[in-house]
Formats: sequence, structure tokens, C-alpha cells
Amino acid sequence: MIVTITLNPAIDIAYKVNHFRIGHGHRVERGRKTAGGKGLNVSRVLKRLGDSPVCTGFLGGINGKWIMDQLEHEGLDQTFIEIKDETRTCLAFLDEENGNQTELMEKGPFVSAEEQEEFEETLKQLMSEASLIIASGSLVSGIPVSYYREISEWAHAARIPILLDTSGEALEKGIEGKPFLIKPNKAELCKYMNQANLSIDELIAAAKNICAQGVRYVLLSLGKDGAILVGDDQILRAEIPTVPVVNAVGSGDSMVAGMAYGLQKKYSLEDCLKWACACGIANAMEWETGTIQPHAVQELLEKIQIKQEAKL
Amino acid sequence: MIVTITLNPAIDIAYKVNHFRIGHGHRVERGRKTAGGKGLNVSRVLKRLGDSPVCTGFLGGINGKWIMDQLEHEGLDQTFIEIKDETRTCLAFLDEENGNQTELMEKGPFVSAEEQEEFEETLKQLMSEASLIIASGSLVSGIPVSYYREISEWAHAARIPILLDTSGEALEKGIEGKPFLIKPNKAELCKYMNQANLSIDELIAAAKNICAQGVRYVLLSLGKDGAILVGDDQILRAEIPTVPVVNAVGSGDSMVAGMAYGLQKKYSLEDCLKWACACGIANAMEWETGTIQPHAVQELLEKIQIKQEAKL
Repeated sequence: MIVTITLNPAIDIAYKVNHFRIGHGHRVERGRKTAGGKGLNVSRVLKRLGDSPVCTGFLGGINGKWIMDQLEHEGLDQTFIEIKDETRTCLAFLDEENGNQTELMEKGPFVSAEEQEEFEETLKQLMSEASLIIASGSLVSGIPVSYYREISEWAHAARIPILLDTSGEALEKGIEGKPFLIKPNKAELCKYMNQANLSIDELIAAAKNICAQGVRYVLLSLGKDGAILVGDDQILRAEIPTVPVVNAVGSGDSMVAGMAYGLQKKYSLEDCLKWACACGIANAMEWETGTIQPHAVQELLEKIQIKQEAKL
Repeated sequence: MIVTITLNPAIDIAYKVNHFRIGHGHRVERGRKTAGGKGLNVSRVLKRLGDSPVCTGFLGGINGKWIMDQLEHEGLDQTFIEIKDETRTCLAFLDEENGNQTELMEKGPFVSAEEQEEFEETLKQLMSEASLIIASGSLVSGIPVSYYREISEWAHAARIPILLDTSGEALEKGIEGKPFLIKPNKAELCKYMNQANLSIDELIAAAKNICAQGVRYVLLSLGKDGAILVGDDQILRAEIPTVPVVNAVGSGDSMVAGMAYGLQKKYSLEDCLKWACACGIANAMEWETGTIQPHAVQELLEKIQIKQEAKL
């Protein structure tokens, strides 16, 4: 059983606004509401691959209730901790006239110490049955910035590999917990290294350095340039086919899902990387975030080349 | 008992967005949610004046539930018809840096024929106890554009005066039902007359013409220029003091509430007009929409001059 953790889910609402202008009023159709959050996307893709992940994290208020109903409707198993504060909303305004996308992201809710304790108990309970843990996305107000380190340590104690996909300080502290795998993209790894821009060789060196700190693998996603999987003893590079990109949002989450799927199936590391890339690309070919067509994944798997890079 | 009708309520959500820019992402604090709709504002002001109005109309889905809870929390009596479709959301983005306000208004829900029948029954039931009806705001999808005419006719049958505050085609058709009073502002009356701009004399002539069609009074609101009450047999003009305007949204609704309050108390027409203006101004002096300070209303009443205009 795979457990996905989403500490700070959101209701995502997307509006189509023609000729969106600051300082004006606009009559619009109802916004399209989805249950948002990186871990939820990971779960959706895993489900499409035939897995039955369990989602956990914090949900609160009327928004939290809506997300729970939505996940149930999607057939996703969930064990969220119900918090007093309200789960956030994120808004996106798409102007189809000129392709502009304007976004508003609400600050997340506050999670109390008691609610954190309840989460810890629930997660440890889930870990007693889980074979893999995936923790994705931002932290939430009230919990310590080192929370992903703590979660990683609980996973270590339960002897379960944990995949961490976050950024900024949450990633920095999370690495200290020595997760099994982290999945930064180029911008996130540059930010971690406190550099504006790094070459591929510099990125690999940074990843090696992270592995030296106890992280087993760094899965570096490079968008249309594929991905690199860096471990202590090897460096694998995935070259991917060019596809028509419809909506790349959620492709990183889909990569994590593909990687987890491969690991769960005990595939070779090369094949795990192939699955990660195939899921990432398949997601980019769909309008909906966190969606893949399994047949597209199968076709893509054959078009992805994995090369062993020279060790640095 | 006063009954207020809000066919198309909304959850209003106001966000403060610093330096709001199209095509960018913005991190924001949680939006301030309020139960919106003109009839709800009227009810709030009536309640502040010591009256106990009953609100009715259509509410649906999770948004409708939220509004019901909110009204209960505010201590407002309600008898809404629960519809299958979801009550709309309206968004406002306030950029405090430059004072810009950007708005998005969702299209309202669909109301089925069965839901309309249920509303008709409920409203007729309420009319058996009501002394005054107030119908405010836009119509909603699925109901005929002549709906305010029908409601006016039911009120006539029940021998209850009805105050109608709407605009466009809903007003045009509503007038055919000969409501007791309508409250257009200058822009609305100009639009009704299909004219870009009308002088005060032309506006009064238009109002007289509406009275000749069977509407007893036209309360014409003129913002900082006060108001004119036009009836078949007299024309009253209110001159109002200058006050610091904080937020004029809802002032029209507050005028309707003040007018209804005066009528309910059997005050003279002059005094009713004074109460209407005092409530409108008192609302403009507050941040919150549909709020008045009763002591401010009392002070304003003394500063409002009512003059009998020469008949046209």
C-alpha cells in the first residue's frame, strides 16, 4: 500500500475570463472546482495505473468537507485529519483571448499541536501497513519547518522508503531526514544550492552531494529535457520524445507517481525512471491536472531512452 | 412582518491583493466571505433598526448551506427554498496600493419549475402573515423574466404593498405588475427610458409616467445629490448632508430598508423619505455592506431636508 501525504490541500477553482482587466467587473461562468494538492495528483495517477493509494494530511471546514466528498467521488481512499481551521482556496483566471493565466493562492490554514499529534498517530498507524510513503507539497501554518524531516524519521523507524517532493526551506530541512528519494526540478535544486542558474554537470554534482548526506536518490526533472536520476553509485539519464504539450501542470507529481509505481513493482532502476518520465509526459498531454491515459504511458515507455552517465 | 426576497444570493469573497497583475501569481490572505445579495442587505439594515424581517429566495449546494448558516449566525430569520444547483460566488479583488477594485460575478444557478412552484407556495404562505414585501436584485436562470410581475400580482391578491428594487428587463417587466414602489437610481432609470443621460426634470417626468402605469411611488436615488420620491399626487425632494463616504456599496439597499421601516411604522411620506436617505447615508459611512449605526441614522434624520417640488 502506498500512502500519499498532502499537508496543505486546496480547492482549486479555475475561471475562464475573457479580456480580464484590472479595475473592471466581469460576468463569468461558474468556476471549475477541483480538489487540489500535489499528493492528491500523485494519488490520482497511481490510481489510473491500477494502484490503490491512501491519501492523508489535513483538511478543515466547508472546503475540507468538499475535498473529502470529491475524493470519495473519485474513488480515492482517504484518512485525513479534520482540523478546525478552513482548508484554503486557490484561484486561477484563464484569459483565452491572450493565453494569460493569473493566479491567487490563499495562505493555508493553521494546524494546532493537538491536530499534529492526531496526524502523527494516524500516519504511524498507516505506516504499519504501508510499503511506500510519498510526501508532496508545501507545509502548512503552525507546523515546524522541519516536519518533513520528522516524517522521514518515522518512515525510517517503520523501515518504509519515503519519496519527498517539496521545495525551499521544507526541502532543505526535509533532506536532513534522509528520505529515500527527492524530486527537485531544476529551479528547485538551483534554489537549494542558492544559485541563480546551474549547468547540468553542476546540478548532478549538487545531487551527488545530497546523496552523500544520506538521501538515496535524487530524481531531477528537467521538463522537455527529460530527467536525471542520481544515486550514490550511478547516474541515469532519461531522454524523452517530443510530444504536443497540452497542460504541463502536475507533470512533476505524475513523475513521482510513476517512480513510486515502479519501485512498488520492484522494477529495475532504469525502468522506474522510464515509468516516472512516461507518467510525467502523459500528464502533460492531458488538459486535466494529475491525469494520465495508461495506454499513452505504455506507448511512451518504449520511446524513452535511459543512458548510464559517466560518474562524476 | 416584512418579507425580503433575494432570488439570486451569492457568497461574496473579497481579497486584498497588493500589486494585482494579469498573468502573475499572487499569495494572498484568506478572502473575507459574506452572504451577499441585495435582499439580505435590506434585511440586515431592518434588523439593525429593530425589525425582524424574514428572508426568502433560492439557495443551493454547499454555497447555499454556507449562506444559511451565516444568516442564522447573524440572527436573521430565513425560509429559503433549497435548490439542486449551486448558489453562485462573486469575487472582488481590492488593490490597496492604487485603490483598484476588480470583480468577477458568477452566473447564477438554474432554478427548476418544481423549485419555482415550491417558492410560490412558500411566498404565498409568508404573505398570509406579512405586512410588506421587498423584492431586490437580479432574477435567476430558469425563471421567467416577468417573475417580479407575477410576485407583484400575488402581493396585490394578498393586499400587501411590495417594494421592487431591480434593473434592466426585470424592472421593465416588474413595473407591469404595478408594485407599490420601485427604487431606481439615475443610471437604472435612464436605462429604462433607453436614454444615455437625463436631466432631473426628465427623470421626474419618467417617474411620473411610471406612476401613471400603476406604480404608486418611484424612489429615485441620486447618490450624494439625495433622492426624489415621485407619486401620483406629489413630488418630494430630499436634500442630504455631505458625509465622509467610506463604502457606498449597499446604500441603495439601505435606502429601501429605511423606506420600508418608515412605511411599516406608518410614518408620513416625508418621514419615510428621510429614513430612506438617513439609512442610505449611514451605510455609506461604514466599511461593511448593509450595515448602519442606528445612532448615526438618528443624527442624520435631523440633517435631511424634505421639500415639496412643484408638480410637473
